[in-house]
Amino acid sequence: MFDLKPYIAEKNRLVNQYLESIFEDVDGSLQIVMAMKHSLMAGGKRLRPILCLASAEAVGGDSADALPVAGALEMIHTYSLIHDDLPAMDDDELRRGIPTCHVAFDEATAILAGDALLTLAFQILSSAQNFKPSHSSKWLEIIHVISIAAGFRGMIQGQMLDISLEGHRCSRFELESMHRLKTGALIEASLCSGAVIGGGNSEQIEALEQYAKNIGLAFQVADDILNVEGDPELMGKAVGTDQLRDKSTYPSVVGLEESKKFAKDLVSKALHAIKLFDNRSDPLRAIATYVIERKH
Amino acid sequence: MFDLKPYIAEKNRLVNQYLESIFEDVDGSLQIVMAMKHSLMAGGKRLRPILCLASAEAVGGDSADALPVAGALEMIHTYSLIHDDLPAMDDDELRRGIPTCHVAFDEATAILAGDALLTLAFQILSSAQNFKPSHSSKWLEIIHVISIAAGFRGMIQGQMLDISLEGHRCSRFELESMHRLKTGALIEASLCSGAVIGGGNSEQIEALEQYAKNIGLAFQVADDILNVEGDPELMGKAVGTDQLRDKSTYPSVVGLEESKKFAKDLVSKALHAIKLFDNRSDPLRAIATYVIERKH
Repeated sequence: MFDLKPYIAEKNRLVNQYLESIFEDVDGSLQIVMAMKHSLMAGGKRLRPILCLASAEAVGGDSADALPVAGALEMIHTYSLIHDDLPAMDDDELRRGIPTCHVAFDEATAILAGDALLTLAFQILSSAQNFKPSHSSKWLEIIHVISIAAGFRGMIQGQMLDISLEGHRCSRFELESMHRLKTGALIEASLCSGAVIGGGNSEQIEALEQYAKNIGLAFQVADDILNVEGDPELMGKAVGTDQLRDKSTYPSVVGLEESKKFAKDLVSKALHAIKLFDNRSDPLRAIATYVIERKH
Repeated sequence: MFDLKPYIAEKNRLVNQYLESIFEDVDGSLQIVMAMKHSLMAGGKRLRPILCLASAEAVGGDSADALPVAGALEMIHTYSLIHDDLPAMDDDELRRGIPTCHVAFDEATAILAGDALLTLAFQILSSAQNFKPSHSSKWLEIIHVISIAAGFRGMIQGQMLDISLEGHRCSRFELESMHRLKTGALIEASLCSGAVIGGGNSEQIEALEQYAKNIGLAFQVADDILNVEGDPELMGKAVGTDQLRDKSTYPSVVGLEESKKFAKDLVSKALHAIKLFDNRSDPLRAIATYVIERKH
């Protein structure tokens, strides 16, 4: 029986170590650098990097080769959180248990720190020290996949939709479209890029994208459910906040029981997509189950 | 004698045509797309793309190969303008003669439109249709050069410096450092990436970087001078605004005459850097002279 906890702890450690190493020769007294590190090194689940590394392993690759991609994905995720938290968007004051970037610094610095993390992600993905010259076209493919997922047809369009849905009841279809773009697209790119680095064939990559589509959405549904019936102590944050803010969620749109059933179905589909993979994809299987069983 | 005006007009047309083509198969009714195009297609001098194309030609390459790079550079420049204009930064209401992005749309949309243009630049630079597979490492090098120039050690740090210098007299050294990062870095990347695509050797690339360093700064000094003694009618905008806003400029820090002398010196250095190039670099020579002779 595969034990997920130490696996996640170890990958988390590797990702954080890698992210720290990026700033090793950088003047840490620069305000822009402090702001970037404030948000990037504040912890978080590191879901995207871990999925990327696990995906590289699932196709038989060495996850160490995928570390720069994992780091870049976390930078892009963090930039999106910094910008989403701005007063002009969600106006959030706390993130990952500490003040949001614009609260800890100021709005201008937070906008630029987000910009800088997004740009740094592409700097890392194009850094020659990360790959053999013969692998150049592979890395260009990864930059392409990630930039599409993060761009105006992916994550950014998802945030636009999220803003437009605010304050009014939305349909199940609108909710799903928003999540598929806002978080699903980058999660899919995480699995896809890991598999490309790991040397996966097109069939494997397609299977992993199916897995990603399903667990990406399951993760959001589970988040909505936890906001209704989670234990605030275990979660380290308040529950019931979605209802207070009149935010459309799966429980509010389709009901709590249907939400749970939907999340389970999505996880089944994710597991089905990778059923022909060998035991090197056990971490991905365990993560899929964890998504709906987690208590925080 | 080389005639710059039709050269610039033709390159301008090609760049605009290329930028339009990027949005050809995109749903133009999406608010994010409208906001991106609002700022990107509003005109502007297209200085960076033209320098990139002229650089490719100067080393004997075909500027058509460099069009995607030229387009990506203009997207990055436009994203930086959108974010710099935000209320949290310069709070400007007009840009390129039309309302700034956050005025025409709203702040959230402007932040995301900037993010989207930055991301789209990297999508274009990694798009396989733009290059032969054997050129992959060249394109990765270009992505690397541009991401460093646009990042927290380049353009973004320049904007941080610009904000920190606001409202107090700064030294000539501080002013120069700020300009070298805020605009100089991306101009240098424009010449460098054009030369890489054009197949320039390392000596040529180094010469073009020297050219870029000098005309980049000369352009800023000339801008400051025009703000003092330009003709508002020719410029299509008010003059004397820097003094009114108590902004540190070359004329205010070193005086008007010394500013003019400095700009001329910089242009001489730029011309000297490319003196061994043949007549295919005549456009670059003409641009250097134009930088200090222009009336708008």
